[in-house]
Amino acid sequence: MNTIIPFISRSDPAERAAWIAALERAMPTQSIRDFATLSKAEREQAMVAIVANPDPAELAQFLNLVWVQSLWAGVERIVQELPGTQLKIVRMVDPQLADTMAEAVLAWTLYLHRDMPRYRAQQARGEWLAQPLPLPRERRVSILGLGNLGILAAQRLMTHGFTLAGWSRSKYVVEGMDTYAGAVGLQDMLAQTDILIALLPLTPQTRGLLDGAALAAMPRGASIINFARGPILVEDALISALDSGHIDHAVLDVFDREPLPPGHAYWKHPSVTVLPHISAPTNQTTASAIVAAHMAAYFQSGVIPPSVDLTRGY
Amino acid sequence: MNTIIPFISRSDPAERAAWIAALERAMPTQSIRDFATLSKAEREQAMVAIVANPDPAELAQFLNLVWVQSLWAGVERIVQELPGTQLKIVRMVDPQLADTMAEAVLAWTLYLHRDMPRYRAQQARGEWLAQPLPLPRERRVSILGLGNLGILAAQRLMTHGFTLAGWSRSKYVVEGMDTYAGAVGLQDMLAQTDILIALLPLTPQTRGLLDGAALAAMPRGASIINFARGPILVEDALISALDSGHIDHAVLDVFDREPLPPGHAYWKHPSVTVLPHISAPTNQTTASAIVAAHMAAYFQSGVIPPSVDLTRGY
Repeated sequence: MNTIIPFISRSDPAERAAWIAALERAMPTQSIRDFATLSKAEREQAMVAIVANPDPAELAQFLNLVWVQSLWAGVERIVQELPGTQLKIVRMVDPQLADTMAEAVLAWTLYLHRDMPRYRAQQARGEWLAQPLPLPRERRVSILGLGNLGILAAQRLMTHGFTLAGWSRSKYVVEGMDTYAGAVGLQDMLAQTDILIALLPLTPQTRGLLDGAALAAMPRGASIINFARGPILVEDALISALDSGHIDHAVLDVFDREPLPPGHAYWKHPSVTVLPHISAPTNQTTASAIVAAHMAAYFQSGVIPPSVDLTRGY
Repeated sequence: MNTIIPFISRSDPAERAAWIAALERAMPTQSIRDFATLSKAEREQAMVAIVANPDPAELAQFLNLVWVQSLWAGVERIVQELPGTQLKIVRMVDPQLADTMAEAVLAWTLYLHRDMPRYRAQQARGEWLAQPLPLPRERRVSILGLGNLGILAAQRLMTHGFTLAGWSRSKYVVEGMDTYAGAVGLQDMLAQTDILIALLPLTPQTRGLLDGAALAAMPRGASIINFARGPILVEDALISALDSGHIDHAVLDVFDREPLPPGHAYWKHPSVTVLPHISAPTNQTTASAIVAAHMAAYFQSGVIPPSVDLTRGY
């Protein structure tokens, strides 16, 4: 007999249907049911639900809910929208996410290393011209942020042979790479960087970290990849540095406002690659497997996975 | 006292100067001298020279030359231009070449895997839209040609997590991947391929191997990377398959005629990435180090490295 597990989300119907299908593949003995298909009795019986940016008014109709499994890693919004709730919120922690981010870092580092934007521009002009190609060890790649994501990305880049450096607020030791910390350390590292990759969380300390002075510290012709958060990088400073040619190219996956507004200078800038926040999307297959494991443990023995500390918000 | 080593090449002056600088960095105790700077006496004294597509008329002025070190791996042209020569020709064999080719294979496989051409087109339209991203193990990448280059490239792709298959004329066993051989094997492999990478030598058997029937055997939406030789792929068949959408994208580094002629349909085709034969360029630093080792052995003990068999031509 299948257990009903409600699925509550403000995503569009196609995305909800895709999630329900992936969740059902991972839990064939459960019945994952979209909010709209549930009767009042079914809503009141449920003790657990799966959520992805849920509407608080919909959530409030589940009177006996003990906990919810979020499909997102970031739960700032649901925490904010449920003041004083007794509900336990379990966030998605999927090791695949760091792996996908390391893939994105490698993919777009190789994109810059192999001069793909320049070859694309040459193709548009019908120009046949080989660009110089340094060896990977001659390419200095620096990572801003040495958390879980930053260290895994650095290791992937080192496996490929690039020369790595890394910066974090406090000094870390990471095998195989030079590490820097603090404001002076940042200047020192930037001065020796060909490709800079931002993987920092957004905090009051990192907001605006990459400003005009930081960009000026980089060697002429360096490039930037921002896979962290838009406000880490000062937009006007970047556009000036790109226009002057001091910075050769920027790969931007995150922005001050998302989606990037129509007409923004980045869209048409020849030295900017605009990506729609896709560096490390949640994978429905691996995330559904994690949800399935949590549900099995709960239905078999009442175990609820570690939940969010609502006073800290994460 | 520096030994004079002549450098004889039809490359343009900037490229000759760059090579001479790289060679002198690798052999600081030798004097590498461009053909035009040598006196008649210096030409007649030289027993060894470094060549890169040399003019046979220039080469003929070196009356005591015993052997030449070519900077290129391919020596078909010099062999053809020196009929009946006693000169020993040493070709460049640089392990860096296979490593650079594996890098190119990984870089442009990730380019397709991460949908970079589609995001580029979306940026041009100002469109913000995330594309589905399979896990690397869900992406079936197949290599045509399991020589030194093909196997190293396959291993690099497996390290990244892609699902690999490979095809060669005779059946090989390669750990971690399915291998195929022969015409039936090719059809079987193509039917299960998302990204196909050509790394085959051009022979009478491989000319036109990727024709309309081969492309039709691939699943709709598959992509192709040609890093081998242009004539392996039938141009008209590829353009038809791209126009119909059966093949999603082609990354082409080699062509029937190079440079790719102005006005060729590939230049402006939205589903073609044109590269100017840059997948695995000779690296001046590593190639110069190999030349330096050969020169040191020759000047110290008269050893000439293995040279080209002029009857076979390689």
